[in-house]
Amino acid sequence: MPISLGELATQFGCELIGDPDVVVKGVASLSSASPDSLSFLSNAALKEQLLTTKAAAVILRAADADASPVASIIHDDPYACYARMAAVLCPPAVVEPGIHPTAVVAASATVADSAQIAANAVVGERSVIGEQAFVGPGTVVGPDCTVGDECRLIANVTLARSVRVGVRSILHPGVVIGADGFGNAMSPEGWVKVPQLGGVRIGADVEIGANSTVDCGALDDTVIEDGVRIDNLCMIAHNVRVGAHTALAGMVGIAGSTTIGERCLFAGKAGAVGHITVCDDVIVAARTFLSKDVSEPGTYAASFPATNAKSWARQLARFRRLGDLIERVRKLEKGRD
Amino acid sequence: MPISLGELATQFGCELIGDPDVVVKGVASLSSASPDSLSFLSNAALKEQLLTTKAAAVILRAADADASPVASIIHDDPYACYARMAAVLCPPAVVEPGIHPTAVVAASATVADSAQIAANAVVGERSVIGEQAFVGPGTVVGPDCTVGDECRLIANVTLARSVRVGVRSILHPGVVIGADGFGNAMSPEGWVKVPQLGGVRIGADVEIGANSTVDCGALDDTVIEDGVRIDNLCMIAHNVRVGAHTALAGMVGIAGSTTIGERCLFAGKAGAVGHITVCDDVIVAARTFLSKDVSEPGTYAASFPATNAKSWARQLARFRRLGDLIERVRKLEKGRD
Amino acid sequence: MPISLGELATQFGCELIGDPDVVVKGVASLSSASPDSLSFLSNAALKEQLLTTKAAAVILRAADADASPVASIIHDDPYACYARMAAVLCPPAVVEPGIHPTAVVAASATVADSAQIAANAVVGERSVIGEQAFVGPGTVVGPDCTVGDECRLIANVTLARSVRVGVRSILHPGVVIGADGFGNAMSPEGWVKVPQLGGVRIGADVEIGANSTVDCGALDDTVIEDGVRIDNLCMIAHNVRVGAHTALAGMVGIAGSTTIGERCLFAGKAGAVGHITVCDDVIVAARTFLSKDVSEPGTYAASFPATNAKSWARQLARFRRLGDLIERVRKLEKGRD
Repeated sequence: MPISLGELATQFGCELIGDPDVVVKGVASLSSASPDSLSFLSNAALKEQLLTTKAAAVILRAADADASPVASIIHDDPYACYARMAAVLCPPAVVEPGIHPTAVVAASATVADSAQIAANAVVGERSVIGEQAFVGPGTVVGPDCTVGDECRLIANVTLARSVRVGVRSILHPGVVIGADGFGNAMSPEGWVKVPQLGGVRIGADVEIGANSTVDCGALDDTVIEDGVRIDNLCMIAHNVRVGAHTALAGMVGIAGSTTIGERCLFAGKAGAVGHITVCDDVIVAARTFLSKDVSEPGTYAASFPATNAKSWARQLARFRRLGDLIERVRKLEKGRD
Repeated sequence: MPISLGELATQFGCELIGDPDVVVKGVASLSSASPDSLSFLSNAALKEQLLTTKAAAVILRAADADASPVASIIHDDPYACYARMAAVLCPPAVVEPGIHPTAVVAASATVADSAQIAANAVVGERSVIGEQAFVGPGTVVGPDCTVGDECRLIANVTLARSVRVGVRSILHPGVVIGADGFGNAMSPEGWVKVPQLGGVRIGADVEIGANSTVDCGALDDTVIEDGVRIDNLCMIAHNVRVGAHTALAGMVGIAGSTTIGERCLFAGKAGAVGHITVCDDVIVAARTFLSKDVSEPGTYAASFPATNAKSWARQLARFRRLGDLIERVRKLEKGRD
Repeated sequence: MPISLGELATQFGCELIGDPDVVVKGVASLSSASPDSLSFLSNAALKEQLLTTKAAAVILRAADADASPVASIIHDDPYACYARMAAVLCPPAVVEPGIHPTAVVAASATVADSAQIAANAVVGERSVIGEQAFVGPGTVVGPDCTVGDECRLIANVTLARSVRVGVRSILHPGVVIGADGFGNAMSPEGWVKVPQLGGVRIGADVEIGANSTVDCGALDDTVIEDGVRIDNLCMIAHNVRVGAHTALAGMVGIAGSTTIGERCLFAGKAGAVGHITVCDDVIVAARTFLSKDVSEPGTYAASFPATNAKSWARQLARFRRLGDLIERVRKLEKGRD
């Protein structure tokens, strides 16, 4: 959606240094931008690229404006400003209200007139689809679900049953919400399935990545609070609560009944065992798992980066002989006395 | 499904202390139970909650009955008893026999009259769907598959081809069974695909969690025995055999041609390399992987729980200097001689 | 597809020792082969099984031919030769040209006459489906995608939008390509979604396993080069490039903007952090992650195989007291001076 630099700057309250009538049609990185693109400089390491950019304008901090060979849009946080302006220039696909003839909507379901139910989607009994919501192709919304206004369930998403999704949330393809949690009781005859009877409550402005899963609660609900970001192939087990604005990167797993605070960050493949409580503002490094309650904000880690395999084999052997080494030091200490 | 305490106790052979005519309509935790709910006390840590529960009745061990302010249903294993009673009170959705008009069933397929093929499901050539089986919306059953009586393929499940699922098994949304295993032969021209020609055999009373995958065998079948429980986002590679009543928690991966015994437990993100044999009754801790045959039942572990990131950085540096430390001890030992 | 040994040997330029008119109908392992099966001996550990095989013929190295009790097909690389011959004997399902009546194809899409669009599949606006391509049941091809000739999207695959798939590539069930990458900018109001505007380019002869995901790029494309093999439940983040003929085993994760070279091998659950460059011919051991650029071909590792849990607890305690041990050695060194 083409827009002039002047309109952009006004809409977001930024100072513009340059011609307000220049129109931009898209966004691009500094190095690949063309004269009708908007770009941004956030990472100081890319400042070199600013000097030769062909962009129409660059969003940058005031201190960098002098170095810009093109128009400047001044913002203290160029990346967040870029994110918002890019959403204006390149908006998501427009919702086309209506129910596709191949979609199947239960008689007791309620679909807002402005919502779109795409090809081969299914909406179950008593479910409610909000205004301007998009239920993408192949998506299955089971019974007793609520999909909030302006939500987007991109394609082949599954809400199993009793799932509430808040407004403006985005569920990417393959996401499964509300499947049974892993509840099993051992008996002499083998495992007995423990009925999973809770639901899932997902807040507003949540985004969940492709093929991630959030299980329903055993009795109470599993809860994902407002503004949470979950990447691909993550697993949120039953009765977990993920606090507002927390972000979980790819392949993170949170085991059952654990509570994660607000504004936490879990890097790739990180996770937490079940039945613990993690306070707000905790950062967990890649491939690190929390094994007990965390009550102190800060960064937690416990992973070993790769090294040459031969060195690693030696290192592993040394590690395994630690008991022996301790014994040798003990002997030396005795000898000294 | 409302039922009287008397009927429940009789059906499961439990002693009832209290009025047999009281009717319960649902289940709840001790703390949130209302006077028409059944609850249970299994975990001693929750005994405090028993004292103030509002439940109609509580399933508990004989020794705890005196402390109960409400009716007691006595059982040595309250959790397993609860699981079974909850299934009576809150049964899974009833199967509604018939093939939905939008479902596509191949001419050579056989669907039992009492089975339900839901909206937009597909059943392939020569496949057989058993009595009271549920093939959920968006599910694809490929060619040459057998879905046993009373199975439930919840929604958007895929059985690629040549998959047999035993009776009463449950496959959650996004599960993929029978996709090609990872068989590749290197050649001067790059990888050559090794045709994956086996199938998958899944036993009775198996449950597989959302978005988990079980690949077909290369030549022989991949096998999941009776009563196995697999959580979400697990991967079972080609030609694996998982023994009866083994449970794999979320994100577990078992590499190709490995055999896992009966009644094993793999915690979250645990796993096993390929081509090994693991005996019965092995427990694998979270994020731990088995790298060789295991012939001794017991618990196996090898993971580092998270710690403060600064401490971890120091600890990692110490670990890397182990060779140096060993050398220093060697010198001290020489000096002593 | 039955074929004579003579025809097979001629087609692949192998020497045949035995009757060229014998017809084989399928393939099997040495131990389970019947007299109309072709088998192979690649792994020396199975040579014992050669002596008693009932196969019609065995593909093997010249040096093993004397030991064969049946016909021999001689090849330096029996496994790759087997892979190619098996594809002749047991070809994949034939594509049946046409668009199933329940499939939904956008008016602006182009589907080759020889392509098959299966039941309940969806093809979006402006997308192009090539000759003899198979778009399996339940698959969603979003807008602006290109599916190359002879590709197979087995079932319930999702190409979100702007995905190009090269010729002969295979995407297994549940695969999601082109979903939004994990781009978020922090702001005082919480996370701001960074529009993900790039696409995904997948080369020729690529195979991607069940439930794996490849995200679209933020501005430029995510790229999977020719001949790459990706196993199940892998995650390729936005703007990653995976070099030709690289193979990623199950549950591997590659974080954003990382470049992986050609002919690399990542074992199960291995991975790489974001924004690094890995050269050609790098092997990464199971559960090992690369944390920085790799410029030297070779094998990299950093994982701890499972051990008895009690031993592990002791070992972990020793590890945690390393600082103490170093201090004790320091004291001993001082004492000696």
